[in-house]
Amino acid sequence: MYCLLKCAPLILAVAVCHGWLFGDFVGKQKELDEISLWPLPQKFQSSAVAFKLSPASFQIVHAKQSSAGPSCSILVNAFRRYFEYMFGDLKKHEKSRKKVYDSDLAELQVWITSADPECDGYPSLQTDESYELSVDEPSAVLKAANVWGALRGLETFSQLVYRDDYGANNINKTDISDFPRFAHRGILLDSSRHFLPLKVILANLEAMAMNKFNVFHWHIVDDPSFPYMSRTFPDLSQKGAYHPFTHVYTPSDVKMVIEFARMRGIRVIPEFDTPGHTQSWGNGIKGLLTPCYSGSSPSGTFGPVNPILNSSYDFMTQFFKEISTVFPDAYIHLGGDEVDFSCWKSNPDIQKFMVQQGFGTDYSKLESFYIQRLLDIVAATKKGYMVWQEVFDNGVKLKADTQIHVWKERPQYQDEMAKVTAAGFNALLSTPWYLNRISYGQDWVNIYKADPQNFTGTDAQKKLVIGGEACLWGEYVDATNLTPRLWPRASAVAERLWSDKSVTDVGNAYKRLVQHRCRMVKRGIPAEPLFVGHCRQEYMGL
Amino acid sequence: MYCLLKCAPLILAVAVCHGWLFGDFVGKQKELDEISLWPLPQKFQSSAVAFKLSPASFQIVHAKQSSAGPSCSILVNAFRRYFEYMFGDLKKHEKSRKKVYDSDLAELQVWITSADPECDGYPSLQTDESYELSVDEPSAVLKAANVWGALRGLETFSQLVYRDDYGANNINKTDISDFPRFAHRGILLDSSRHFLPLKVILANLEAMAMNKFNVFHWHIVDDPSFPYMSRTFPDLSQKGAYHPFTHVYTPSDVKMVIEFARMRGIRVIPEFDTPGHTQSWGNGIKGLLTPCYSGSSPSGTFGPVNPILNSSYDFMTQFFKEISTVFPDAYIHLGGDEVDFSCWKSNPDIQKFMVQQGFGTDYSKLESFYIQRLLDIVAATKKGYMVWQEVFDNGVKLKADTQIHVWKERPQYQDEMAKVTAAGFNALLSTPWYLNRISYGQDWVNIYKADPQNFTGTDAQKKLVIGGEACLWGEYVDATNLTPRLWPRASAVAERLWSDKSVTDVGNAYKRLVQHRCRMVKRGIPAEPLFVGHCRQEYMGL
Repeated sequence: MYCLLKCAPLILAVAVCHGWLFGDFVGKQKELDEISLWPLPQKFQSSAVAFKLSPASFQIVHAKQSSAGPSCSILVNAFRRYFEYMFGDLKKHEKSRKKVYDSDLAELQVWITSADPECDGYPSLQTDESYELSVDEPSAVLKAANVWGALRGLETFSQLVYRDDYGANNINKTDISDFPRFAHRGILLDSSRHFLPLKVILANLEAMAMNKFNVFHWHIVDDPSFPYMSRTFPDLSQKGAYHPFTHVYTPSDVKMVIEFARMRGIRVIPEFDTPGHTQSWGNGIKGLLTPCYSGSSPSGTFGPVNPILNSSYDFMTQFFKEISTVFPDAYIHLGGDEVDFSCWKSNPDIQKFMVQQGFGTDYSKLESFYIQRLLDIVAATKKGYMVWQEVFDNGVKLKADTQIHVWKERPQYQDEMAKVTAAGFNALLSTPWYLNRISYGQDWVNIYKADPQNFTGTDAQKKLVIGGEACLWGEYVDATNLTPRLWPRASAVAERLWSDKSVTDVGNAYKRLVQHRCRMVKRGIPAEPLFVGHCRQEYMGL
Repeated sequence: MYCLLKCAPLILAVAVCHGWLFGDFVGKQKELDEISLWPLPQKFQSSAVAFKLSPASFQIVHAKQSSAGPSCSILVNAFRRYFEYMFGDLKKHEKSRKKVYDSDLAELQVWITSADPECDGYPSLQTDESYELSVDEPSAVLKAANVWGALRGLETFSQLVYRDDYGANNINKTDISDFPRFAHRGILLDSSRHFLPLKVILANLEAMAMNKFNVFHWHIVDDPSFPYMSRTFPDLSQKGAYHPFTHVYTPSDVKMVIEFARMRGIRVIPEFDTPGHTQSWGNGIKGLLTPCYSGSSPSGTFGPVNPILNSSYDFMTQFFKEISTVFPDAYIHLGGDEVDFSCWKSNPDIQKFMVQQGFGTDYSKLESFYIQRLLDIVAATKKGYMVWQEVFDNGVKLKADTQIHVWKERPQYQDEMAKVTAAGFNALLSTPWYLNRISYGQDWVNIYKADPQNFTGTDAQKKLVIGGEACLWGEYVDATNLTPRLWPRASAVAERLWSDKSVTDVGNAYKRLVQHRCRMVKRGIPAEPLFVGHCRQEYMGL
């Protein structure tokens, strides 16, 4: 009886370990090095018994008992995608179906157990992403309640396949029972500071699926540009985008992003940040922004959304009505961060309003006044909302299911996480994961070490932490450098949010992550190197 | 009479300014913004008078008086390349030759004035890269002593062409007289820590030409891998490369790099660093490296090249004989940095040798002993050599034409530059230009501010500064991220080394560099953004 944990140098360090018979490990070291699961599954057992997979005969099929069948496009697409990942570079050379040997693994059966496989649905915060995977002859079986768990299991299965020294595809006898630690595992991309062509967004959705991320937080507009093409207010992008045709997301583009994400079990949560960060909105909507004053006359510049005009709220009502139908997810991110009060302070009408409302000189009360009304407008669309931490910090009255997005470095994010959850709100962490911030060397290590539940609080508080997001703000990234800057650094966040809390060994993570980044490179994602070394297949997609 | 300097907001801030009549500048502001020369020429005059260029009829031709003609492949290649840069995206749509208007610029005449245009030569440290460019109707004239100056002038000419609001190509009446401030303007790439596929190297040579760099310092081998395929010692790469076939530079690859560089007026200086940084050499050459000892017996690990064996020097003699024929440049970089003495200290044979030589316990004397013999070996091949500063610091006897490459942060590089030049040696600066070191934000500014002549010394000392190199060491870069990490940060070094000393205005540089990086993007180089914004043509080469 050997336990995998005894084979400590192996990459397959595991959380669970209860007695399997293993074969000759020593000779298999090399092959096992190639199996680098990322993120590490919750429960994992493997043996050195290896099966061969023939690209010519291996199939991914619906299990007989499965509630999903050939009409389930989300699975059919995934079968094709993972077959390509595993054998894409081989199948061209296969002329005929090979003889099937006894040791072959003939197929992977995908078994959806719920009555509704959710083939045509969208993933949500409540989605069950768990799956069970058993690799044994003659068939491997992947069992999941619905298609979302199956997608995660397919990724894991594809990561188990490795080439031996003769180039043959192998997979070891394996049992996996897996589920995410946190329900919300996101990536924020910012398409306002630089416009991101559709293919950059799609490539990153691909990479997200390889890392079991499930939320694309689309920070779609901001001060510099408004690339979202609104049907209700076409002037927003017509006048607010860097270019009205080449630097916009048309309704069709947005649909494509949402569908591409859905196929990978990824939610798309758009952020329309107000009342600050709205300079680009002002180009298309006259009177929306506060006119700033220089002394007693308007200076010609504009500040945040004008919170004292009914027209502002009328606009928001119509605008968010559109947004709530365009984006199927149950949540919208409403921003609410970094409101600069200087313009409001300069404006005599605002000053008068402050007096009328009894706000004194506390402009955060005015901010809260605006946010409060906005939240009511969005709540009427039946959407839930996410907000940046300032909204909570300023004491705005929030619906119980509001998600507070923690991002500030001061006060310490641990204190903020404690406060937010003590108040009974769901909390999301991003502070340690601002991946736009770069430094020399292996900065993935600190990214990896941060833990969203690492604060002082009760178990009930800890349960209110629904996850986190890696943010790549757009000041210094565009299509030229975004993908290698994000990957594999974001992979460190992916494992933190998926794997068991106890998975913290940096040395072990390094070995797996090196292989995982090579796997991403092989699949066409230009993920940058962690350190000195090479991949069998280097990046050629220049 | 208007002087261009009066039009301060214009991007075309200029070093020289003596009386030209200008047209209506205000209306031309936009077009002029598009003309962002980088690096800024030494002497420059422009007027608002604009000529149209028709892709269908415009030609780059040899001037009648030119000593070069259609058989000068270096020029013919350059004509084609720059025509593509200027009109590549247009000419597909041109069906017929357009009517030529009076205001058209019909052609650019390239006039090589020396008897020998050097069409089949290689650029060198002594190369005259100056050129004169006059853009006026009906023809523009580019005058240079040889092809190398013409290459620089063609780059400048192509940067002068801009599109107006109707998409038409324009160029303004312009006079330029230009030459480099420093003769050695290099980029170091490291193909050992990560193997760099040929196309990465070629793409960077392209980008170098766009920035008037003229030296590719190829740090081709180092501890981690030995990708250079030697005809004399094939085992070096066979056993020392990451992979003996896929991760090596064949003789043909090396030739291609040299020729591709020559076409762009770029010297290729290979670095074969010894006695340290040679772990990968030891795989292919038994006995070359010093066996390290643990107590009284060999530990199985190896240190620097073994300096006490004749076989080491025999090997170096043969090896550098090959290198001196493969690489046509007059210089070889011999490294000599960061020799770790611990292994030498542990070895009893070395200890004995130290006693015999009367070196005491000063191992830098042993290092100098080795380097001295190596320099004699290389000198016998008639090559000049470059070395890292340690070789100078250790007092090795050096040929008068030796170039000392300053890279250390301590002591201050200014002091080292002063010392090296006071001793009468040529100095090259790299310390402030280790571009592998990254930090968040606009780090190009400090890169731009550094000046190789900014040290205390006589005019004679300053003249010994032949230039500098931007170094991109390979720990964290490979094909996935190298190009956007290097560009446009290296462009800051390019201007420092080419333009006049007085060109130091960061605000002005920012505006031009933003446009220059968009130009590189348009030409297919994924140069990363400096800050928030967009290019007319975004990078699509994903």
